[in-house]
Amino acid sequence: MSNVIFDMGMSLDGFIAGPNAGPRNALGDGGMRIHRWVFDLESWRERQSLVGGQTNRDDEVSNETFARTGAYVMGRRMFDEGEVGWPDPPPFRAPVFVLTHHERKPWVRQGGTTFTFVTDGIESAIKQARAAAGDKDVRIAGGANTIQQFIKAGLLDELQIHLAPILLGDGVRLFDHPGTEQIELEKTRVIDSPRVTHLTFRVVKED
Amino acid sequence: MSNVIFDMGMSLDGFIAGPNAGPRNALGDGGMRIHRWVFDLESWRERQSLVGGQTNRDDEVSNETFARTGAYVMGRRMFDEGEVGWPDPPPFRAPVFVLTHHERKPWVRQGGTTFTFVTDGIESAIKQARAAAGDKDVRIAGGANTIQQFIKAGLLDELQIHLAPILLGDGVRLFDHPGTEQIELEKTRVIDSPRVTHLTFRVVKED
Repeated sequence: MSNVIFDMGMSLDGFIAGPNAGPRNALGDGGMRIHRWVFDLESWRERQSLVGGQTNRDDEVSNETFARTGAYVMGRRMFDEGEVGWPDPPPFRAPVFVLTHHERKPWVRQGGTTFTFVTDGIESAIKQARAAAGDKDVRIAGGANTIQQFIKAGLLDELQIHLAPILLGDGVRLFDHPGTEQIELEKTRVIDSPRVTHLTFRVVKED
Repeated sequence: MSNVIFDMGMSLDGFIAGPNAGPRNALGDGGMRIHRWVFDLESWRERQSLVGGQTNRDDEVSNETFARTGAYVMGRRMFDEGEVGWPDPPPFRAPVFVLTHHERKPWVRQGGTTFTFVTDGIESAIKQARAAAGDKDVRIAGGANTIQQFIKAGLLDELQIHLAPILLGDGVRLFDHPGTEQIELEKTRVIDSPRVTHLTFRVVKED
């Protein structure tokens, strides 16, 4: 069965975006600095319909995540921020299930991305995403609140963090919900490259 | 000249101790799980006046930090928590400068550890610690608030994080002071071992 994963860039002090993040400022003030390792990679540029770019170890890691992902689940705020900014075709190239309280017809974009709006909760979203993903994985795209919901619900199987060498000091924290149970992780891979450290973990589930 | 460093174990979600940390519960609830990679190392055990222990790559990293440190600076709360718990000789084996508002005569312990109480601020503490450290480095021992003070004041040269594969969910956050300036780091070393990932960074200082 496919895994439920997330894959996020994070500063050493735990931020995935800078302060004042919102529509037309999706990464927040200074948030580009967390993710700058990715912007000149061929795989990332190709997803933005741009040609060229670097084909290094970071690009392999980036490609790997695109290749294994068969469907996405996304929070409404991330969708709202992206709706005004994503190109067409959007970078997902796969079905995207958006968690929301508002009914809306599916929004079909070019390149294989269809946004389906799910109003009956995260379990339903996962079920629909699994069915759409086939043998591939379901990636929780974000934002941080949505990822935390899946962690708390015990639905996450694996996570990859791209740790950026910067202290951002403020912004949107990935792990900002104290009070969850302690969750053991099994570190499955560490790939270090000059601008980022890619850390992969599996969630250790109690029997 | 010697460097000002810190060296801390941290969970993937950014905690250096669990919730309810305090005297007689210095690591907080579950906080042992952040630091468990260290407890059976020969170097750590030797500092607790225990014999035996593992001599692996983690032990080399641990030894390296002990060897390079010529003096410590410590916050008052960390001192208060440790005063009731440290063995004699304490694990420092070097002069320790404690930041406090209360005058107190130096407290001389066995094995080279003398606690000197500094009431005139962090710059004064660094000056005294540098003088005591000679060619060796000054290590900011903690806690988190004290480390943040040194980061904000631009006094930190290097940091090492021992990243533990666990989501603690709650506790004492190492980087818990939003609003600092963004600080660029140069990643200088990554050593991965089965139970922990050792990440070393230099602070990039503006000219």
